[in-house]
Amino acid sequence: MTDSTRLYELDTPTLLLERGKVRANAERMRSHIASLGPQLRLHVKTAKSLEVTKLVQGEAPGPITVSTLKEAEEFSGHGYRDILYGVAFAPNKLARALALVASGVKLKIVLDSVDTAKTLASLLKPTDPSLPVLIEIDCDGHRSGLKPGDPKIIEIANLLASTPAKVCGVMTHAGGSYDCRSIDAIRAMAAKERDAVVMAATSLRNAGCDASVVSVGSTPTATYAEDLTGVTEVRAGVFVFFDLVMAGIGVCRIEDIAVSVLGTVIGHQREKGWTLIDAGWMAMSRDRGTAKQPMDQGYGLVCDVAGRPMADLIVVDASQEHGIIAHRSGDPARMPDLPTGTQVRVLPNHACATAAQYDRYRVLDGGDRVETTWTRFSGW
Amino acid sequence: MTDSTRLYELDTPTLLLERGKVRANAERMRSHIASLGPQLRLHVKTAKSLEVTKLVQGEAPGPITVSTLKEAEEFSGHGYRDILYGVAFAPNKLARALALVASGVKLKIVLDSVDTAKTLASLLKPTDPSLPVLIEIDCDGHRSGLKPGDPKIIEIANLLASTPAKVCGVMTHAGGSYDCRSIDAIRAMAAKERDAVVMAATSLRNAGCDASVVSVGSTPTATYAEDLTGVTEVRAGVFVFFDLVMAGIGVCRIEDIAVSVLGTVIGHQREKGWTLIDAGWMAMSRDRGTAKQPMDQGYGLVCDVAGRPMADLIVVDASQEHGIIAHRSGDPARMPDLPTGTQVRVLPNHACATAAQYDRYRVLDGGDRVETTWTRFSGW
Repeated sequence: MTDSTRLYELDTPTLLLERGKVRANAERMRSHIASLGPQLRLHVKTAKSLEVTKLVQGEAPGPITVSTLKEAEEFSGHGYRDILYGVAFAPNKLARALALVASGVKLKIVLDSVDTAKTLASLLKPTDPSLPVLIEIDCDGHRSGLKPGDPKIIEIANLLASTPAKVCGVMTHAGGSYDCRSIDAIRAMAAKERDAVVMAATSLRNAGCDASVVSVGSTPTATYAEDLTGVTEVRAGVFVFFDLVMAGIGVCRIEDIAVSVLGTVIGHQREKGWTLIDAGWMAMSRDRGTAKQPMDQGYGLVCDVAGRPMADLIVVDASQEHGIIAHRSGDPARMPDLPTGTQVRVLPNHACATAAQYDRYRVLDGGDRVETTWTRFSGW
Repeated sequence: MTDSTRLYELDTPTLLLERGKVRANAERMRSHIASLGPQLRLHVKTAKSLEVTKLVQGEAPGPITVSTLKEAEEFSGHGYRDILYGVAFAPNKLARALALVASGVKLKIVLDSVDTAKTLASLLKPTDPSLPVLIEIDCDGHRSGLKPGDPKIIEIANLLASTPAKVCGVMTHAGGSYDCRSIDAIRAMAAKERDAVVMAATSLRNAGCDASVVSVGSTPTATYAEDLTGVTEVRAGVFVFFDLVMAGIGVCRIEDIAVSVLGTVIGHQREKGWTLIDAGWMAMSRDRGTAKQPMDQGYGLVCDVAGRPMADLIVVDASQEHGIIAHRSGDPARMPDLPTGTQVRVLPNHACATAAQYDRYRVLDGGDRVETTWTRFSGW
């Protein structure tokens, strides 16, 4: 759908996407990963949008990572065939997963549980189509996965060896990289992420098992990885949009952030230095990911309608449909006058969470015209 | 749509709604407000569902409050005619508001800004249909509104006196009641909320202006108000579902909470006492509203599949599609064994935020069968 609506004509709040920034973010990540060797398996959980995926990968469907079977189903409906479902599998999802495989999708699933492996081995029939498994490895104590040297890795591979859910490799996610406080720390985390999964793959091979897939991924480690020897693929998602959390750890610049929420000033409490807008937590999400960073950005960093940050103006608090803008210092004297009706753009803490509040992107390409509108889906 | 799916057959995560609890919550609030005199103007922003509204009000469309024009449009499409748009109006929404009025809706809007009043006075033509205004009063310093004695109240009324946006009264929202730490404090807040708006209405009448509508509202103050003399209507929304924030301030019991998220165990980190489920922040929302309460419930309180709370089990952390359940003490020895595949139900911190992550309610009525499915809408 093409369009030529001007920003000032838009209903607010609404989600804006700058196409040129997505293109540049994608090009930077693509060329960096290509220079290191592995393939890039885009995580589509951030954008949940066919058009954004095409902007990153080109028109031909490439390999993707999904966080829900709904994402797999949506993308398979548009010809995407090489899909990794990156969340530990629960057997109650087996029928949907097998339906995807039956429709022609090369779906891989992830698990780290001997119990789940046993259940799958008991549920799957030899005639079921192939549903290859990656064993999840814990590289940083952040969330899920088995430690690289855990004997359960080989136990799971053996349990599934003669089933349609044969193990074909390992995967890990350095989610701890979001808490890094320096580029050096991220580089070290990228090396640790690689080492964990390469070690686990080696132990699988030494036990006579397949480990042809060795998968790592997080936007920070993908951005700063220097050597991915032994790794076959990198998963990353939030780099397509970036956000204040990523800027806060030095993974992008503020000006690389491609999504923002357009809001309108609806009132003031001038003696407190507050300007109220019609973008509250429903428009921004409740994500406060910068709260634990050195620079707390509240519910988002405020820019003028052209997207230029307004020095130290943040959304300090939010209710469902109200955002409260104030100067970071709290000093009313430092608040610029933003009359009612003024439009502002707010950069989000966490692109995945903010974008999830919307069913469409209004796409800009440098100017103040909406060039087109792209849908996004949600749910499970 | 009727249904007879059992809980164990449901894909997870999914949003469950217990019809009997909604019915009881609604009956309690309805009879309390009726005993005090004012009418109850249900806030539909929590449920965003026609069926939930009917469960509260009966089949005949009653007076409602909305937080977005989208809500007004959705409900007007089902015959709701008496609608208050409860967020300070921005003139860029005028065309949509007038279209609603032209379609037969008796729409009232809210504002607290002399500038907005001037803009409306300049934009509205004498032939435009009536769009009555309530002036927003600040009763607790929480968010927006004019102080009860502010001369701008009369200034706004005079600015709009001869326009289709004539002032017809005042409204306030005691959002500060969410931070109360005792029932006595909530009772005092309810009295303060009433006094603020009754005082503002009196000053309007003394100046010869209309103040036939005197509107208050928040679920805590509505629940504990003892005397609403001078108030004509009460707005409240979250009471239909209740949540952990409301339970934490004593406005409901845990067993009154009518919504929960059904999730499935996908893995363990047993040495840490962690059980992982497929309900992360996308399923629960990022709302951490109990973090500042005496009892922090993490991302939600964990119940068994029948809805019985499991002593001191909470979702301590969440990523997009992973929730981490642990014992409140952090002690791994106190974690019950929840094998992979086990279903749990998680009660939310904030019903409005959690429900907003879904496009439907799976409705239970006492048993483990889904009786029906109700849609909910979102967006602006």
